[in-house]
Amino acid sequence: MNNDTVTGPGGFAAAGVACGIKTSGNKDLGLIVCPGGAVAAGVFTTNKVVSAAVMVCKENLRSSIISAVVVNAGCANTCTGTQGLNNARAMCSQTGRRLGVEAGKVLVASTGIIGHQLPMDKITRGIGMAVEACGDDEQSGRDFAHAIMTTDTVAKQAAATAKIGGATVTVAGTIKGAGMIGPNMATTLGFLTTDAAITKPMLAKALRGAIGNSVNKLTVDGHQSTNDTALILASGLAGNPTVRKTGMDYDRFASAVMDVCASLARQMALDAEGATRMFTVVINGASSKVEAARAARAVADYPLFKCAVHGGDPNWGRIICAVGSCGVKLNPDRLSCRLGSITVFKNGQPTKFDAAKASAIISQKEHVITVDLGAGRYSDFCYGCDLSKEYVTINADYHT
Amino acid sequence: MNNDTVTGPGGFAAAGVACGIKTSGNKDLGLIVCPGGAVAAGVFTTNKVVSAAVMVCKENLRSSIISAVVVNAGCANTCTGTQGLNNARAMCSQTGRRLGVEAGKVLVASTGIIGHQLPMDKITRGIGMAVEACGDDEQSGRDFAHAIMTTDTVAKQAAATAKIGGATVTVAGTIKGAGMIGPNMATTLGFLTTDAAITKPMLAKALRGAIGNSVNKLTVDGHQSTNDTALILASGLAGNPTVRKTGMDYDRFASAVMDVCASLARQMALDAEGATRMFTVVINGASSKVEAARAARAVADYPLFKCAVHGGDPNWGRIICAVGSCGVKLNPDRLSCRLGSITVFKNGQPTKFDAAKASAIISQKEHVITVDLGAGRYSDFCYGCDLSKEYVTINADYHT
Repeated sequence: MNNDTVTGPGGFAAAGVACGIKTSGNKDLGLIVCPGGAVAAGVFTTNKVVSAAVMVCKENLRSSIISAVVVNAGCANTCTGTQGLNNARAMCSQTGRRLGVEAGKVLVASTGIIGHQLPMDKITRGIGMAVEACGDDEQSGRDFAHAIMTTDTVAKQAAATAKIGGATVTVAGTIKGAGMIGPNMATTLGFLTTDAAITKPMLAKALRGAIGNSVNKLTVDGHQSTNDTALILASGLAGNPTVRKTGMDYDRFASAVMDVCASLARQMALDAEGATRMFTVVINGASSKVEAARAARAVADYPLFKCAVHGGDPNWGRIICAVGSCGVKLNPDRLSCRLGSITVFKNGQPTKFDAAKASAIISQKEHVITVDLGAGRYSDFCYGCDLSKEYVTINADYHT
Repeated sequence: MNNDTVTGPGGFAAAGVACGIKTSGNKDLGLIVCPGGAVAAGVFTTNKVVSAAVMVCKENLRSSIISAVVVNAGCANTCTGTQGLNNARAMCSQTGRRLGVEAGKVLVASTGIIGHQLPMDKITRGIGMAVEACGDDEQSGRDFAHAIMTTDTVAKQAAATAKIGGATVTVAGTIKGAGMIGPNMATTLGFLTTDAAITKPMLAKALRGAIGNSVNKLTVDGHQSTNDTALILASGLAGNPTVRKTGMDYDRFASAVMDVCASLARQMALDAEGATRMFTVVINGASSKVEAARAARAVADYPLFKCAVHGGDPNWGRIICAVGSCGVKLNPDRLSCRLGSITVFKNGQPTKFDAAKASAIISQKEHVITVDLGAGRYSDFCYGCDLSKEYVTINADYHT
């Protein structure tokens, strides 16, 4: 595939411009436009405190057709009261007016610092610039990916295709978030486009499933922000028979969405704040899927284990401590642990293992930790990354 | 009070010796002896994986009279299978034999690295040395406090008195733990002595209450270790009428135990790994005590907030994000937050505040964060500390 940006699938144009919200002068306002209109679906934060952008985005998502998405970085528009809500609505109405569509057909997302009002003069100017700059070429898609970044060091993009009824359907996406939480808590924003013809319920189902098994399996510092938003827009131009129900066609489409989200989640883990390596925690032998997920997350969130990974220290005791303290059922006499393919703890007893080899495994760019709880037949996993001094620097030296 | 160590209350002798378990050559084996016999109670980790020392200590605590406590640092005796259990029992029987008491009257605790067997030759030699060195003077009490340390940089001690029935009762204690979790997960071990005459159930009740409102309210990295143990021994020599039931006498005693534990918890927070300052998170307006505690802990455990405290950054949005994501009931329109006495967020709206003053507050050695959830009438609190690069250094550069 040549163009793996949001302008890859047919029917979409995009832009990313700098309008002065970020003090760095970097791009900070992005726009995706679907002139023919798109079916859309979204997944949002479950934090009880949410950005005004999230509230307005949910409202407008009720529209059967969506024409555009406008996004700003540098200010989260969260904890901003009534004025914040008015500003989020103004972002939609200004974008709609410039594009000649109703405000209700424009989705909105914000990311950045919390508790500050949006600089609406800059936003207004930015929206004008973005509408002018909008293009369906690859560079326009890349500009959009850059405009949504906060502490991300690289733009993240992925694309996949599926054959549905003889037609090639393309799914592309970009995401921002240097962890589950970027500094100032505006964090994961994900935007996917596709040229598939698909109904809204099926599109929503595919997005929910893919986000649940990718971004939602990634933990950097264990918290969900007030702004998390993932949106998918489908232009319907691929020429495939419209996907209306589950079945083979749906599965092919969902699998392409999953591939894009999984790639984006891995890119996020490797670009997480201060991270130098990532890992996957696999939990087997749990008494339920929920408990498997909880145990995996307990290990991936455990600062002592994250530090050990950073130091290349095969300190498996910290893994056992984390699963033991997270409240899941386990059988101490069946509990086992592997670092890569090396068994370090089996049926409740420590094993003799080559510490140098184990250290080499845990020092790799990516590695897998496997724990068997010995309590059932369920499994789940979680992505995590190491905890470095750089993480502290990024998050302590930033000033409001 | 002159002697605030475990030898302060009448009836106790102690020792701390170096027997070579710690590679540093520092003291690593401690002993408390109560020649006249003591009533004893304990509180233990709720981790599902526990040290062999915890298992044996719980068994022996069933004895109505306890004569001694033996403790080693440098090796946790956790994840060590049958051999580990035998070794924990051997620590009790060797100590008992040297002191001329039954093994069942000796309590045991271990702290240090997980997954390694105890070096029993060194332990045996250490027990002999400790019995020889045992004294009821202050220095012997200080030696004990040093022998139980791992990454602690200072020994922690506290004492308090209470008047019960005309007699002065003394409670003293020491604790180790550079956080809820020291590296290698052997962590909080606390040992209290008192000369009070009190029944076992009342002693247990006072300890449970005090630990619950002190050490259990402190979070450094959010996890409970496999070895956590707090023990209290009462010699009964103070001459007070035996405390047999709740009431004024019990309350006075319990209050002295609480004072000792609260002081020890604060000393732990200030000595936490890499910590440069501590804070108390107070949650008001919660719909239940449990939810208030959960919200307080969510803030105190949130790495982004801990980093902000380290950097002296009054980034209150991170506090709101943490309470919003921890699943407790809250009213977004009533949600408020104060840093010290400065209101930064009130009834869901940001306030104008003096950022320099707020930064000065959050940069103090100790400060208080108050959040009102606007959802009910319950309150609770949690102690926490900042997250520094030094924490990462301590926990990444340590090698198994």
